[in-house]
Amino acid sequence: MRFSLKPQDDAFYAFFNDAADNIRRGVAILAELGDESADYQKISERLVDVEHDNDQLTHRLFNKINSTFVTPMDRTDMYHLAGKLDDILDHMEAAANLVYLYGLSELPTLPREMIEQVTVLVSQAELLAEYMPKLKGLNATMKEFWVECNRLENDGDRAYRMLLVRLYSGEYPALTVMKLKEVADELESACDSFESVSNVVESVYVKES
Amino acid sequence: MRFSLKPQDDAFYAFFNDAADNIRRGVAILAELGDESADYQKISERLVDVEHDNDQLTHRLFNKINSTFVTPMDRTDMYHLAGKLDDILDHMEAAANLVYLYGLSELPTLPREMIEQVTVLVSQAELLAEYMPKLKGLNATMKEFWVECNRLENDGDRAYRMLLVRLYSGEYPALTVMKLKEVADELESACDSFESVSNVVESVYVKES
Amino acid sequence: MRFSLKPQDDAFYAFFNDAADNIRRGVAILAELGDESADYQKISERLVDVEHDNDQLTHRLFNKINSTFVTPMDRTDMYHLAGKLDDILDHMEAAANLVYLYGLSELPTLPREMIEQVTVLVSQAELLAEYMPKLKGLNATMKEFWVECNRLENDGDRAYRMLLVRLYSGEYPALTVMKLKEVADELESACDSFESVSNVVESVYVKES
Repeated sequence: MRFSLKPQDDAFYAFFNDAADNIRRGVAILAELGDESADYQKISERLVDVEHDNDQLTHRLFNKINSTFVTPMDRTDMYHLAGKLDDILDHMEAAANLVYLYGLSELPTLPREMIEQVTVLVSQAELLAEYMPKLKGLNATMKEFWVECNRLENDGDRAYRMLLVRLYSGEYPALTVMKLKEVADELESACDSFESVSNVVESVYVKES
Repeated sequence: MRFSLKPQDDAFYAFFNDAADNIRRGVAILAELGDESADYQKISERLVDVEHDNDQLTHRLFNKINSTFVTPMDRTDMYHLAGKLDDILDHMEAAANLVYLYGLSELPTLPREMIEQVTVLVSQAELLAEYMPKLKGLNATMKEFWVECNRLENDGDRAYRMLLVRLYSGEYPALTVMKLKEVADELESACDSFESVSNVVESVYVKES
Repeated sequence: MRFSLKPQDDAFYAFFNDAADNIRRGVAILAELGDESADYQKISERLVDVEHDNDQLTHRLFNKINSTFVTPMDRTDMYHLAGKLDDILDHMEAAANLVYLYGLSELPTLPREMIEQVTVLVSQAELLAEYMPKLKGLNATMKEFWVECNRLENDGDRAYRMLLVRLYSGEYPALTVMKLKEVADELESACDSFESVSNVVESVYVKES
């Protein structure tokens, strides 16, 4: 009889892949904010559903960590990683919710630079979905993950800063600027959370290697 | 002769109970912001005193951690826990100070949703005071602590978001909106700090169990 | 033949000293924001260069941590410390960049309280440059480092709060207030990052002692 820890380990890695899938589903909905005649309320509600799915996933992972004796990674690292993945969806959901709550449909469209922020999030989500399955075994190509994450986060920072310059240019009334700024901040936090995921992965890699 | 580590351990747990008591004293003062004809300056000054008391408590704890060979919890966890408890009072003190500094007595009352934020903080403080004494021994009922913490943090988020919707509705002039937003952010940070306390407790529990 | 780990160790400590030097160079450039007829664009560009230098330094350190078997401090602590030192320059660079990007040269001068924030950063950078060389050996005088860091962070908080009171006084138009607030927030974050450096140093000290 062979004894194997593999199936158990695979279950842990499957959680991270599932979270990456949820994020990809979420960002696809978020990207609809840029569509002409987008229904902000529907977008917000659908994102709440995805975020809720991921909350349940995260809770199942936490319970599994609690009830498993030997885990494939350090428990604290798995907590951190799941938490940061969850943060990404929280911030995306918050951004879409604020667009709806603040009645930003009063604007003909959202500013182009805000849509660029979302485009960066789409790229980050694709990168994540590509590399999460490679987490197991921590192979050398993971290095490309955090290098590319860092590059995308810089793109996101640039889009955010350009958006702020536009918001403060006098084109919009002060209260509208404040509302858009809130949304932009949530998108920027989502972008930073991807970077945090990459940092946790990098630190796991450093410890293991 | 019996050798016991207990008295020493009790001293550590007593610190966390004392911090929870300080927070309960602090939030009771903060709640006076909702009173008709509240004296914002006095409220702010009294909260500075409570925050100062807790700073001293935290420093005594840090010194005790430094000078004790065997501690009942991981040193780093105790640092984190004390730090997060201290953050709660820092944010409550900052909120009250800004209400006074920004001259918000110019308004007839603070917005109802802001008082709701404070009401959530009151509930969080009561929950904390109930569960800190159960920290020792890490018994199973602690799970209810973080489940309930999470629920209250969601209540706080909702009150915060509803307040923002009102602030951006056009009811107040732009500068007043900015002032109220600053105060709301501090209250929201206090609410999040309770959640952070709960996260530290949960991670301690996971490691020990 | 004598075997020594010293030269290796010195290389690690040299990184932290070099980062402290970069921060001192950066803050000297930042302080020029207070000069009459300061060229905000040039200040921003020169700060980008310093920040870039420090990014490269941080990457060299990370590679060294990865490729070294025995490190003088816990790997995670060295990561944290280098990350927080890097944050200081990031926030200073961001502040100067926003002053330029938002066209704040439209104002005759930046508010006095904002220059006070920078003055605190200058003191923090000097303190850091004095104490980083003493990191090796973790001698008892390091305690003065975090006590003094804490004092300076309180000074920074006070300058920040006084600036906000002025910004919300009605002296500036709403959009100008928002721009100045963004800059003030970056300066405040730089100030907080010094405090974070001090917290990492303190936690290392606690673990080792």
